[in-house]
Amino acid sequence: MSADWLEEVKWDDSNLAPVITQESETKQVLTLAWMSRESLALTLETGYAVYWSRSRQKLWYKGEESGNQQLVKSIRLDCDKDAILLEVEQKGGIACHTGRHHCFYFELVDGDPTGKKWQPMEPVLKDPKEMYNK
Amino acid sequence: MSADWLEEVKWDDSNLAPVITQESETKQVLTLAWMSRESLALTLETGYAVYWSRSRQKLWYKGEESGNQQLVKSIRLDCDKDAILLEVEQKGGIACHTGRHHCFYFELVDGDPTGKKWQPMEPVLKDPKEMYNK
Repeated sequence: MSADWLEEVKWDDSNLAPVITQESETKQVLTLAWMSRESLALTLETGYAVYWSRSRQKLWYKGEESGNQQLVKSIRLDCDKDAILLEVEQKGGIACHTGRHHCFYFELVDGDPTGKKWQPMEPVLKDPKEMYNK
Repeated sequence: MSADWLEEVKWDDSNLAPVITQESETKQVLTLAWMSRESLALTLETGYAVYWSRSRQKLWYKGEESGNQQLVKSIRLDCDKDAILLEVEQKGGIACHTGRHHCFYFELVDGDPTGKKWQPMEPVLKDPKEMYNK
């Protein structure tokens, strides 16, 4: 856990870093999640994305329940060394807990009468109940 | 500034949200930056990416000095409504202040003798001195 490469990451005040996960085949941005030192080390070790769940305050082995694991193809860091980019193969074709392919499914579009609104744009591919109640 | 669509975003404790910016043509992830309500409203209003600089604690009109503006094609929000995805046309082909096309240029590769290291992978396309001393 004290490897030099892990310490080169500029972890924030909560000892976390934001992680963008992009699908290698489609180049689609699937999720924005967070990693701790331990989750990044486990991601490297296992070859599958392991995040830190801020809501549950624990390690989040992506796909543990749903089966929708993310096989890691590359791990990158940005110029400031405070943000991570994972390139992955998304198992099951579903990254989002809502049963959609990816999480960024609200698009800002014209609303009525004069404003803007966030419109859901992607189909639900699988009922979340099916994904989590096996 | 009090528009419903702006308030639907789940701003963090610092009243910011992380923003992934992706190039529309190449689908490459260019940057991870941050927005405030005001910068998101200005992004919509001007059609160009306006971020919040956490280091300078002020609005950051992307490309203001370098000319490398980002023309916004779409604005998306994720399932939790706490992360933003911009699709942009990157003017000048350079998103990174180091003069590279994008910011995620360090890749985790095998180091020596047994460890890992962050290896810079992308060429510098323009000398930063040229970009910022006009």
